Amino acid sequence: MMDYGKIIDAIYRDLNTWERTGKVADYIPALAQVDPQHFGISVQLLTGESFHIGDTLKPFSIQSISKVFTLAMVFHHLGEDLWKSVGREPSGTPFNSLIQLEQEAGIPRNPMINAGALVVTDRLLDDWKNPKEELLSFVRCVSGNPSLSYDFGVANSELANSDRNRALAHFMKSYGNIHNDVNDLMDVYCHQCSLQMNTRDLAKSFQFLVNRGVNPWTGNELLTLSQAKRLGAVLMTCGFYDESGDFAFRVGMPGKSGVGGGVVAYIPNVLSIAVWSPALNPHGNSTLGIEALERFTTLIGNSVF
Amino acid sequence: MMDYGKIIDAIYRDLNTWERTGKVADYIPALAQVDPQHFGISVQLLTGESFHIGDTLKPFSIQSISKVFTLAMVFHHLGEDLWKSVGREPSGTPFNSLIQLEQEAGIPRNPMINAGALVVTDRLLDDWKNPKEELLSFVRCVSGNPSLSYDFGVANSELANSDRNRALAHFMKSYGNIHNDVNDLMDVYCHQCSLQMNTRDLAKSFQFLVNRGVNPWTGNELLTLSQAKRLGAVLMTCGFYDESGDFAFRVGMPGKSGVGGGVVAYIPNVLSIAVWSPALNPHGNSTLGIEALERFTTLIGNSVF
Amino acid sequence: MMDYGKIIDAIYRDLNTWERTGKVADYIPALAQVDPQHFGISVQLLTGESFHIGDTLKPFSIQSISKVFTLAMVFHHLGEDLWKSVGREPSGTPFNSLIQLEQEAGIPRNPMINAGALVVTDRLLDDWKNPKEELLSFVRCVSGNPSLSYDFGVANSELANSDRNRALAHFMKSYGNIHNDVNDLMDVYCHQCSLQMNTRDLAKSFQFLVNRGVNPWTGNELLTLSQAKRLGAVLMTCGFYDESGDFAFRVGMPGKSGVGGGVVAYIPNVLSIAVWSPALNPHGNSTLGIEALERFTTLIGNSVF
Amino acid sequence: MMDYGKIIDAIYRDLNTWERTGKVADYIPALAQVDPQHFGISVQLLTGESFHIGDTLKPFSIQSISKVFTLAMVFHHLGEDLWKSVGREPSGTPFNSLIQLEQEAGIPRNPMINAGALVVTDRLLDDWKNPKEELLSFVRCVSGNPSLSYDFGVANSELANSDRNRALAHFMKSYGNIHNDVNDLMDVYCHQCSLQMNTRDLAKSFQFLVNRGVNPWTGNELLTLSQAKRLGAVLMTCGFYDESGDFAFRVGMPGKSGVGGGVVAYIPNVLSIAVWSPALNPHGNSTLGIEALERFTTLIGNSVF
Repeated sequence: MMDYGKIIDAIYRDLNTWERTGKVADYIPALAQVDPQHFGISVQLLTGESFHIGDTLKPFSIQSISKVFTLAMVFHHLGEDLWKSVGREPSGTPFNSLIQLEQEAGIPRNPMINAGALVVTDRLLDDWKNPKEELLSFVRCVSGNPSLSYDFGVANSELANSDRNRALAHFMKSYGNIHNDVNDLMDVYCHQCSLQMNTRDLAKSFQFLVNRGVNPWTGNELLTLSQAKRLGAVLMTCGFYDESGDFAFRVGMPGKSGVGGGVVAYIPNVLSIAVWSPALNPHGNSTLGIEALERFTTLIGNSVF
Repeated sequence: MMDYGKIIDAIYRDLNTWERTGKVADYIPALAQVDPQHFGISVQLLTGESFHIGDTLKPFSIQSISKVFTLAMVFHHLGEDLWKSVGREPSGTPFNSLIQLEQEAGIPRNPMINAGALVVTDRLLDDWKNPKEELLSFVRCVSGNPSLSYDFGVANSELANSDRNRALAHFMKSYGNIHNDVNDLMDVYCHQCSLQMNTRDLAKSFQFLVNRGVNPWTGNELLTLSQAKRLGAVLMTCGFYDESGDFAFRVGMPGKSGVGGGVVAYIPNVLSIAVWSPALNPHGNSTLGIEALERFTTLIGNSVF
Repeated sequence: MMDYGKIIDAIYRDLNTWERTGKVADYIPALAQVDPQHFGISVQLLTGESFHIGDTLKPFSIQSISKVFTLAMVFHHLGEDLWKSVGREPSGTPFNSLIQLEQEAGIPRNPMINAGALVVTDRLLDDWKNPKEELLSFVRCVSGNPSLSYDFGVANSELANSDRNRALAHFMKSYGNIHNDVNDLMDVYCHQCSLQMNTRDLAKSFQFLVNRGVNPWTGNELLTLSQAKRLGAVLMTCGFYDESGDFAFRVGMPGKSGVGGGVVAYIPNVLSIAVWSPALNPHGNSTLGIEALERFTTLIGNSVF
Repeated sequence: MMDYGKIIDAIYRDLNTWERTGKVADYIPALAQVDPQHFGISVQLLTGESFHIGDTLKPFSIQSISKVFTLAMVFHHLGEDLWKSVGREPSGTPFNSLIQLEQEAGIPRNPMINAGALVVTDRLLDDWKNPKEELLSFVRCVSGNPSLSYDFGVANSELANSDRNRALAHFMKSYGNIHNDVNDLMDVYCHQCSLQMNTRDLAKSFQFLVNRGVNPWTGNELLTLSQAKRLGAVLMTCGFYDESGDFAFRVGMPGKSGVGGGVVAYIPNVLSIAVWSPALNPHGNSTLGIEALERFTTLIGNSVF
């Protein structure tokens, strides 16, 4: 039997001595103040067992990881129709690029880049009455933590620095691919990015993907088996912006990162793992987070490949 | 116990009634003459069992699937140094694009697009004495079929229609990323594309990836465990040109296609599957091949996700 | 002595029999209702003489031609400092493209594409107290027509359909290259586009360029000699979006077009000529307008080349 | 009466004290050895008078300036049909870019970028029996200097470093837009680039454009009036790669540069001027050459604008 606790302890002890290279996200003041020394790892098995080392109780801003939750809600609701408005190909370009959006007439490459995530959130506004409340309730439900909430300071700070995302939204609206008022959309989008979780919550919140669509904490089917497979494929090919191929290559698990320094990944039927370390590499992904995950799949001798 | 034979029979019977939409590759006469009605499926389990239906004995031109074999040879030989000359990110663009090559100063995005495969083959010319003979011997070895060979008619036809690939090679040579004479390189490259296999050979030839690096027919380690994982990740994110995300989404296995109409994919530790149907979709991938593989992972309820 | 009146009569008579190919601009209702049959030509000599044929008294929306007036105001005010925020190279891309804007970090290629014109108008908002009033006063002054005004219906219609320009403005604001509130900027920009002139006004309003910077109606220097030369060069290389090279090739004069169907061009020290015909070619330029100007420079045997 | 001699003396004396910033072209050894201190200016009036200062007798490699001569020959021969194979829009990208070539299916943007010049030279091979001899004879004729010749050392050095141009040629050949064998094409192309002239020859060789198509030394019509206008427009919008807009802005004359450090420009009906200074700016144009021409049009108070 694999000793996951021992493995993450070894990874943690070694990497924790590393100098924190890379920069903490600084486009909003709230994120710029985060201490780059934080480092925590949580592993959650589908059997219910879990293992933790380091800063696993301190919440952080999950940022783009929230795209996975809105995508799960909207994909289950709209089914394959969703893919008329957003693609599922890697973009090969940075996360907030307008170039492909223009070349492809307002249809974003995939739901993990900002443009695609804005389309997904726009669909939440279409069909949910209180999208902010209902998203919060979804996230509480998948993480099994009823006290999760938005960080309103971060949300407001993002709203005040949202020119790039507003540009994306207006641009897609000019093609008819955003349906709602851009101000309303930005309000929901900036809140979803401000969701606060610790690594324990985060590892738990991906168990419905480990369990191939069914929330293990409630037994509810959140995605069909086929949808769960498909969402995993999207994370594998698109979850890390223009570093997705590299992440697949080094780590070999579907996953998602956020500029708050969180990274989460999973092996279907087996486990999910969340790492938090705020210093980011030039692609906007946690330097230590990716290194820790590469070592993890190497040491356990398992991945999806 | 899964009845793979029954499953591929059902898929074959249903899809064989479909009109062959899409066009057979026509850039060289030898490929244009292939009958689009051909259709065959072979499944090879790691246990040794195999299942076949349709045209599984007739050899066809494997074309770009050969990129996997040269990559395995060169990756094992050069190790991580290889990745200084070729990336491992999805390109988001068609298979013979020069655009990203220019933006990224002669370093191709990944070894599955033509530019990247040319770099890999160029490295064969660097370090192997008789690259054509040695590649053939590698392919015979992984497929367990000592009678495999090149189709010299196809190879010569490709050589006579190689302006686009020559452009790629000269362009990278201007950046110093091709080391050998372009005529010599084209000779080896056009031969590797002309390799002939049937679906039985092809399914068998991917067993060293199913077996995570070790050739099951000989017990030799062709790739380390880590290299096998990494090669799988490259296939998952880059194996189908700008349809890679879609293939991952629909099928959920690492794999590779060729314009001869072949597609091959695998689930580590379990099985490989090869399909042949020459009519191609606009991305240059076999229409029926991809459909068959999507149905296969759906029906067996298994994939890497 | 050249008989300009006879020349434009001949051009008018011949071209007026042409079927109006191309589409009237239809992105806002006010423009879509314009009758494509309108056609008028006005020539204004620096000597004071003028020649007119066809619909030369009916005002139309000058749209992008207004970019020349704001550029003249801001260039004279800021001098060479302006070129830190906007380039003067042809873009090689359509008029509202975001692609180069992204590749060049928020600095638009030139002041004749929408992004560049937005930067110029933003500078008006920086340093003019009542930009809408002062722009109107400038245009009245250069045209010698004190009754020129905005079409508020068109301006409001543009404001309601401004997602693409808002996207450009927010995008450049994210790089710090837009200083003012995007709503305020759009208000001035949409008004400037709605300026109404007939071909007589338009031909007269370019006389300060014919006269190399000095307004002939008042004797005021609006641009230095060097600035007038430079503005002419910008019009020559960038005045017709991605059809600029073709316009220079066929017509050989610096000029500017608008999607309202107006085109205006000039030969320094000699004359300006304005044409109006609302049906547009695929580049967004008046089909008949460009044809008329090509014939004009051919028949008078003069151009800047 | 303008004292051109005094004006170029003043420009020469001032600029000659400048440090030679920028690098001499170094992609072939023959060019890398040229002394960056060389500096010469020649003005040739249509009246026959000429003015010279500095190194105006020493020949240098005219490189891309030769594109003007092949274009004149082929344009006059093929007429407007030429423009089916090559455009006349500024490219907005560096001189040897493949990107737009790919986006526009093998049709180069204009005949002044390398791809376009290769198409033009390919047409010479189509219809001229001895293209190298006949080009030489054309250039001797327009310059009035029967002793002009190729520098075979430079030509061979270029041939040995032609991967980028070979890439362009093979790429366009894959679209059918190159008709001849790539080796034959490269032979003529590398010779044309190696043409040797001094600034006196160069200024004289552009007099057929000053004279609007008619060779003043012989009275022969080399281009029609309309073709001369059109060729001037191409030089104005495309003659300086992605610095064309800037050159038009600063200098205001149609012209052409070469990486040998030569620049030549003209005012129709008035004069041509050639400058040689081998140190190049980052766009590949002579730093001092462009500065000298800007001062020249400022001091004479004349340009085409």
